[in-house]
Amino acid sequence: MKTKAATALDFYPDTSTLKHMIEFVLLSRKGRTDGNFRNLREAGRLDVVHECLLLGFFTSGAIRRDVVFHVILGGPPRPPVHLTFDGRSLTDVRTDERTWEDIFRKVLSGGSHPGVELRRESFQELVKELARKERDMFILEEKGENISDIEFGNNPVFVLGDHVGLPRKDEKFALRYGTKISLGRKPYLAATCVDIINYLLDLRATRK
Amino acid sequence: MKTKAATALDFYPDTSTLKHMIEFVLLSRKGRTDGNFRNLREAGRLDVVHECLLLGFFTSGAIRRDVVFHVILGGPPRPPVHLTFDGRSLTDVRTDERTWEDIFRKVLSGGSHPGVELRRESFQELVKELARKERDMFILEEKGENISDIEFGNNPVFVLGDHVGLPRKDEKFALRYGTKISLGRKPYLAATCVDIINYLLDLRATRK
Repeated sequence: MKTKAATALDFYPDTSTLKHMIEFVLLSRKGRTDGNFRNLREAGRLDVVHECLLLGFFTSGAIRRDVVFHVILGGPPRPPVHLTFDGRSLTDVRTDERTWEDIFRKVLSGGSHPGVELRRESFQELVKELARKERDMFILEEKGENISDIEFGNNPVFVLGDHVGLPRKDEKFALRYGTKISLGRKPYLAATCVDIINYLLDLRATRK
Repeated sequence: MKTKAATALDFYPDTSTLKHMIEFVLLSRKGRTDGNFRNLREAGRLDVVHECLLLGFFTSGAIRRDVVFHVILGGPPRPPVHLTFDGRSLTDVRTDERTWEDIFRKVLSGGSHPGVELRRESFQELVKELARKERDMFILEEKGENISDIEFGNNPVFVLGDHVGLPRKDEKFALRYGTKISLGRKPYLAATCVDIINYLLDLRATRK
């Protein structure tokens, strides 16, 4: 697999000049790190990542241009891989699983897709970089502070695990920079967490 | 395709004895009505139906047993078809698209799956049946009353269209029995509507 040659500057979307930018960080522990798979489910549950991207980016007939979605893949053969999906430049996408299977296979095989970048970087490196930019970071966790009591600020970052949850050491690391928040009493699908957060942010007058 | 021989009594889930049962009605205008398709997207956008079922039934590691999900398929070759997915008896399901592709293909080819029933019935016949049972019916529509102002009652029914929306004549028909409600200023994916409604109902103390 080729590694994209990207400087820190062009890889990390420059969100400093934007008034309202929302970032998600999803850690997919077993997500496959090459394009050699039959389907997303068998690729270390990349189907879960697809669900999150679907609800992260799509409303009816439109793409949320104010969302940047980071995915860290920790599966074989060569982890970690950091994929960034940038709503401002994401094109040629549809909602269904097979469309995203093609995109994952292409990008993880060294190809490119508009709005998607690949870098060899760990979860903790990404969190540190976001913290360095003084972003308000929120870690989704069932036992966290109730989301309805939280003031998100203008450029929040939401950190979540896949169906297995965040590994303890990574959660602990992220909590050095962020706050633990919860959607309620139930353990939700990662995709539902993304969906609800987008919705709660939509209810604010400031989000377009 | 065989039509299931089901009496009204065993087909319509008996929700009268349950304190809190939530029903969704999704009209899929073009949804394919036999099992002859390559994938869900090409089956008249049954991928959209899959997304709705995913967020209708699944939390992390559990199935919502208090949900009944009706889908009306209006596509070729022989519409309409009414599929009922009953959370109380739904088994052998996973979240991914291919699992549901198999279920749809099987049931639409005359086979069976636990918790899924097929009947030849139209949207308007279903709405009339639900109204006869005096269920509180809410029709999702961008210009409806804001959902935060609504008192849902114990056994609400939520009616929504797919990515194209409800045909005007069917919406008008449903409005004879129900109230138009809206999630906010944005046009959301049908799946997001289902997800948000489930979440808002979870926030009530009365839902388990």
